[in-house]
Amino acid sequence: MRFHDLHHGDRPLLLPNAWDFASGAALVKAGFPAIGTTSLGVAAAAGKADATGDTRDETVALASVLSRLPVPVTVDIENGFSTRIGEVAELVTDLASFGIAGINLEDGRADQTLTPLDHQTTLISAVKRAAPQVFLNARTDTFWLGDPDRDETLRRARAYTEAGADGVFVPGIMDDADIRAVLDATNVPLNVLHLPGKTEFDRMARLGVHRISTGSLLFREALQTAVTTALGVTGQNAGHPTPTYEDIQDLIGG
Amino acid sequence: MRFHDLHHGDRPLLLPNAWDFASGAALVKAGFPAIGTTSLGVAAAAGKADATGDTRDETVALASVLSRLPVPVTVDIENGFSTRIGEVAELVTDLASFGIAGINLEDGRADQTLTPLDHQTTLISAVKRAAPQVFLNARTDTFWLGDPDRDETLRRARAYTEAGADGVFVPGIMDDADIRAVLDATNVPLNVLHLPGKTEFDRMARLGVHRISTGSLLFREALQTAVTTALGVTGQNAGHPTPTYEDIQDLIGG
Repeated sequence: MRFHDLHHGDRPLLLPNAWDFASGAALVKAGFPAIGTTSLGVAAAAGKADATGDTRDETVALASVLSRLPVPVTVDIENGFSTRIGEVAELVTDLASFGIAGINLEDGRADQTLTPLDHQTTLISAVKRAAPQVFLNARTDTFWLGDPDRDETLRRARAYTEAGADGVFVPGIMDDADIRAVLDATNVPLNVLHLPGKTEFDRMARLGVHRISTGSLLFREALQTAVTTALGVTGQNAGHPTPTYEDIQDLIGG
Repeated sequence: MRFHDLHHGDRPLLLPNAWDFASGAALVKAGFPAIGTTSLGVAAAAGKADATGDTRDETVALASVLSRLPVPVTVDIENGFSTRIGEVAELVTDLASFGIAGINLEDGRADQTLTPLDHQTTLISAVKRAAPQVFLNARTDTFWLGDPDRDETLRRARAYTEAGADGVFVPGIMDDADIRAVLDATNVPLNVLHLPGKTEFDRMARLGVHRISTGSLLFREALQTAVTTALGVTGQNAGHPTPTYEDIQDLIGG
């Protein structure tokens, strides 16, 4: 239960997201008590677009090698890489078999719509039954895809909690009132995405957020540094901003 | 012959080294006319130690996906991942089949000694016979492993050129006199490793060096940025220096 306990410290658990073994190992060496993965980074590293359900093999391979690290690892499995509940449950059982401590399971789909609520709650229940020891962080994309929708967020946060989720993740949520409403709606830990200048760590801590994850930020900043360093060899002024999520998707598509 | 031509411009070819598809694609987008790979980065990303001959599969997979990029790609194949000449020739033929423009083939071995000269020249000849269109950059580790040895470097630069190498790479060489001596010893392009503060680009250009590669630097700087960014979320002072080659090896070993 060590990974579960990390969600109940004095301060939010800052969960950095790795995309390969080296980034995971470097973050552990820097002292982080647990690490996650970033599906954008895993997909882009392999030359694939994110959230198209096409990176199951890469995700399992990464989880396998990260499981060597001496800290709990939680794996972003997008929407489970399948619409078949049994296949998702099997994937999580496989991850559990080599010691993965947690997963993120999201309701966003490649077509930018949300999985119907009843399918998602059935999925969450089935995965928890199959791998009860795995911390299931139920991600809802109610703030990530389309216009932010607080009512739908609360409905899903409650339903996912009832279905057995160990935590709720609402990437894109940032306002105090929205965050307080989700915290009131569920008794499981709330995970918020770190958005520079928008979800300041100290403010999230004061609100009582349990987990802050970095998403694809570390991956994108790392890529930016690689390019800047290369341009700097000949004294060229890099001057590029950090690539956005969309920039990375363009890069892979192009 | 486009990749070959890039070695004969007014200025040295600055060849940045990628470790996954995303880093390669980002470097191409930034305008680099060709890219290489870094065996340290490829190995560390996969959770393996560098130069142990254990990353053949990862190297081929990366080469395959990088071959989608619209620029010439040259692949670091270490010492060919085999002591059998036929197997190395087959590997390079495979790489050529999906459009790889060049390879680095080194004489350093996992036990930190150099492959005997006659084996290496036989290997270079065999690889060139099997895949004549591939730019064979013959790397000698006479400055990389143990004490720098100028005489052995010149002997090997001449022998590798006679065996059919398209270029010679001497990582670790930095002094004017050493570089001039190698340039005098061979009529094929000379590749020098970019070492910050030690092999300044403008000085290399004045000496007549043909290619400057970044080795593992971009990978190491990228990793450092990921850690620094993560620590910065909670306002921690990162203050770590960029990891060295040895730091990365320690990271994987630990």
